[in-house]
Amino acid sequence: MKKLVAVFSGGLDSTVLLSHLLQQGLLGLAVSFNYGQRHADRELGAAARIAQRLQVPHLVLDWAFLGKVIAGESALLNDRYEIPKGHYEDESMKATVVPNRNMIMLSVATGISIANGFGGVAIGAHAGDHAVYPDCRPEFLEACGSALALADYTHQELLRPFEHIRKEEIVKIGSTLDAPMELTWSCYEGMDVHCGTCGTCVERKEAFELGGVADLTEYR
Amino acid sequence: MKKLVAVFSGGLDSTVLLSHLLQQGLLGLAVSFNYGQRHADRELGAAARIAQRLQVPHLVLDWAFLGKVIAGESALLNDRYEIPKGHYEDESMKATVVPNRNMIMLSVATGISIANGFGGVAIGAHAGDHAVYPDCRPEFLEACGSALALADYTHQELLRPFEHIRKEEIVKIGSTLDAPMELTWSCYEGMDVHCGTCGTCVERKEAFELGGVADLTEYR
Repeated sequence: MKKLVAVFSGGLDSTVLLSHLLQQGLLGLAVSFNYGQRHADRELGAAARIAQRLQVPHLVLDWAFLGKVIAGESALLNDRYEIPKGHYEDESMKATVVPNRNMIMLSVATGISIANGFGGVAIGAHAGDHAVYPDCRPEFLEACGSALALADYTHQELLRPFEHIRKEEIVKIGSTLDAPMELTWSCYEGMDVHCGTCGTCVERKEAFELGGVADLTEYR
Repeated sequence: MKKLVAVFSGGLDSTVLLSHLLQQGLLGLAVSFNYGQRHADRELGAAARIAQRLQVPHLVLDWAFLGKVIAGESALLNDRYEIPKGHYEDESMKATVVPNRNMIMLSVATGISIANGFGGVAIGAHAGDHAVYPDCRPEFLEACGSALALADYTHQELLRPFEHIRKEEIVKIGSTLDAPMELTWSCYEGMDVHCGTCGTCVERKEAFELGGVADLTEYR
């Protein structure tokens, strides 16, 4: 099987994805996006450190302008909105949806895959994302996979190994694979340490707890 | 029906698309991409003049770096390759394929549509493109349409009115709608006037001839 381009944010899910692909001998390149997200420095800094630790080729695409044109109502991209507090699955977290983010990242990663002779793209979307993000739903990702398969005369695959599992299982897999989870960044606020109260921080804590894995994160 | 975001290159097909959408009252915004194509200045200059003539809101996204990361073997993006001469449908024109260009443009246009409360995206891909460009095939665009429809909690449509017609019919429609076809740019070489010999120039000439519409293009 040909190697794949991994969409890589520097967060928990995509970091465990890298370790998973490495173990399978499938990792060709990790691609990160700066789309003007508030926590870009934290997230991309984490991504760079993780890629270095794992000795993985890493490409960062700087698209800060993209955030401007697709900002809409997303609190992730607009300074005038507060990041919602509370549980990740709450209705309020819908304010952090970035319009069509996954399809944009997948289509660019596929272009890179085709150009470099790789066999497609891998993404770490998981079952816990579905409730909030329309572009993490299995039916959406399946439709993207069908499009990718026809995007070129070579077959391009969309691998999504965590699609049907929850985040605590990803943490368990990460622990088994010795993924550098302590280097990952989840918080949507752009502070020095994880805030511990935004939706993604709450979800992160919960995943380590439910997964029975030590959480080395420093929370405020 | 909600208005749409049109993917707009400044070429014949997408210019007639704008006139078609305007006539239907469906044009929300025209979006052009600078992805580092050799003929960017010509193409985007034409796009700006056409948008002004039609008094259409026009957004140009500057992604010159994108061409670098997805350049691969495409003669459209690499100075070290010659633009192939001859007929547009020739095997040699495959050298001008830009990996996954349509899906990248569609997914970004959809993000913009969602962010601005529009109802989706329109693209001018037509039957003559199918032989050369994998990402102009109807089955690919249909798969993209299925993905777009699930990309958000609002319905996002992918309109492709020229999918099953040939370029000479697009020229006829353009003539009927009084589309400013004389302002459009097709040539893949970046010279002052159309070269008249590259694949897209040959295709352009042929479309006016077969369509029985006067060709006001200046060829070298």
